[in-house]
Formats: sequence, C-alpha cells, structure tokens
Amino acid sequence: MDLASLIRTIPDFPKPGIQFKDIESITEHPEAFAWVIQQFADECENHSIDRIVALDARGFLFGAALGLQLGLPVVMARKKGKLGGDCVSETYSLEYGEAEVELQKTAIKQGDQVLIIDDLLATGGTASAAAALVNQVGGNVRLFAFVIELAELNGRARLGDVDTMALVQF
Amino acid sequence: MDLASLIRTIPDFPKPGIQFKDIESITEHPEAFAWVIQQFADECENHSIDRIVALDARGFLFGAALGLQLGLPVVMARKKGKLGGDCVSETYSLEYGEAEVELQKTAIKQGDQVLIIDDLLATGGTASAAAALVNQVGGNVRLFAFVIELAELNGRARLGDVDTMALVQF
Repeated sequence: MDLASLIRTIPDFPKPGIQFKDIESITEHPEAFAWVIQQFADECENHSIDRIVALDARGFLFGAALGLQLGLPVVMARKKGKLGGDCVSETYSLEYGEAEVELQKTAIKQGDQVLIIDDLLATGGTASAAAALVNQVGGNVRLFAFVIELAELNGRARLGDVDTMALVQF
Repeated sequence: MDLASLIRTIPDFPKPGIQFKDIESITEHPEAFAWVIQQFADECENHSIDRIVALDARGFLFGAALGLQLGLPVVMARKKGKLGGDCVSETYSLEYGEAEVELQKTAIKQGDQVLIIDDLLATGGTASAAAALVNQVGGNVRLFAFVIELAELNGRARLGDVDTMALVQF
C-alpha cells in the first residue's frame, strides 16, 4: 500500500509554512484503512499488547478500530479537562508554551502491556507525556504506533527505547 | 447487553449538577464495544449507508470502528479550524453562545447515503449542524446513531424526520 501517495497534503495549514498531512485520506479509503489497521494489529501481537491508549483526537480513529479488530480494551489520553473522574496529569512543552494530557487512574490495570497510538509523530511531546502517565499508574508501554512520522522533527528520540512504528515517513 | 449498568456516571462533570456518562466504560470493555458496533452495523445495512460522518471527538471512536467493520469510508465533522482544506461550515447555538462545525467539501460524494455518528445525543445541536453540512455538499443523511441519548433534552426533535437510533437512554 503506497500511503505516501495516498495522503493529501494541505499547504500552509494550520499556519503558513506547514505542510499538513491529512489522514482523512486514509479513513475515507476503506482498503487503505484496513491495511493500516492490519499493520498495527500484527505488531500488537508481536508485542503481546493487552491495552490500547489512543491519543486525542485523531488517534481515536486508529486506536478504536484496532481495538475492535483485536478485541482489546481502548482507553483515551486527552487534553486536560475532557475526561472527568480521577485522573493523572502530565504537562509537556510545545513550540510555544505548554500543554497538559490526562488519563483516568483506572484506565490501566497493573502490569498491562500498553500500546500508545496516534495518527502522527511530530516532536513526540504528547506521546511521551502519555507514556509517563501509563507508567505512573502501573502499566508498561511496550509499543508506540503512528501512521505518519515527520522524521526531521526527531520525535523518536523523545520516546526513549520503547519500540516505535510508523507506516510512512515524510 | 446491559449498557445502562455498564456505563459509569461521573458526578458534577464537567460542571456541578451534570451527571457525566463516561463512554470509556464501553471502549475499555471489548465485548461491549463489539456489541455496540454490531448494533450500528445492522442498522447501517438496513439503511444502505455508504459513508460515515463521525463527530469530533468521541464519535471518532465509534465511527472508525464501524467503518472498519463494514468497509465503509469514514470522514470527520470537526470543530472549526481543525480539518484544513476547503471546508463548509455551520454555526449552531449552545446553552451559552455558539459553536461552529466543519466538513471538508470533498468528504461527501454526490448522492452518498450518510450515517452521522456520535457517542451521545444531548440537544442535537452538533448532529443537526453536521447534517446541514452533509446536505449542502450533496449527501443524503439517512441515519443518526448514538450510543447514549439524554432523552429529557429532546435532541431528536432537532434532528427532524431522519431515522435516529440510540442504544441506551438516560
């Protein structure tokens, strides 16, 4: 599957100079979407994953479909104030300023082998913050999965030595 | 499947007096999630649905899993400024103020039989605005699907005479 050709680029979005990679190109193409989910599913089985943490918001598309396919629980890591209940929270730095991501304390069971999934790996800030939260509540992050990796931003470095997969690099 | 018992209630979230229904109770429970998706899939087949519009953000969880199961295209209706590209946009009223939802103009093909899906039907503002956008770009909204309906808010009235399904009412 030639994802690189399939994925639309929207120039100058969300701001001038950014070439936005539109993953709706995949979800609106059933064969491509099924192929993407199958690649993730294979690596989940290789890593004995038993729980999926999907990142807000486009990560929900891939995490939920993968969870359905594998029969695995899917939980959300969300921007502060969206989840409700008793949460753990982690602040991380952005290009300008900070952001905060949350996970419900009961979202992970002790010893869970966790996949963290999102549509795109850029600087890795959100994913590494989500991993800190999973560790904090007793899970083991075994794998990060992304559809797209913006390689020049070197997000992998921020994710440490956990296995990291991306299906296409730009 | 007794969804009503399964779904956690978080009191006083996001503000005092609101009893928040936490649909993560479903996505973290694989049998329940598969059952929910199957109910939606059956009704999609009854309505000859050929495209799914998933509402930002928890609607992505259900819309994407359903799209994978049925092999149907999944597109997003999102809060203003999130999608990129050439969009149609609709403003709708909230309890306090207004919100705006967008859809890419190319997200719908002329004559598509469309499902609009979200986790929860409250006042129906977002769903009815999304339907207006689908109609504007040439689609036919055939079905609305929700996991939860807050019946006393009477959102169905705002959705007109399009078939509307919800799996549990509170």
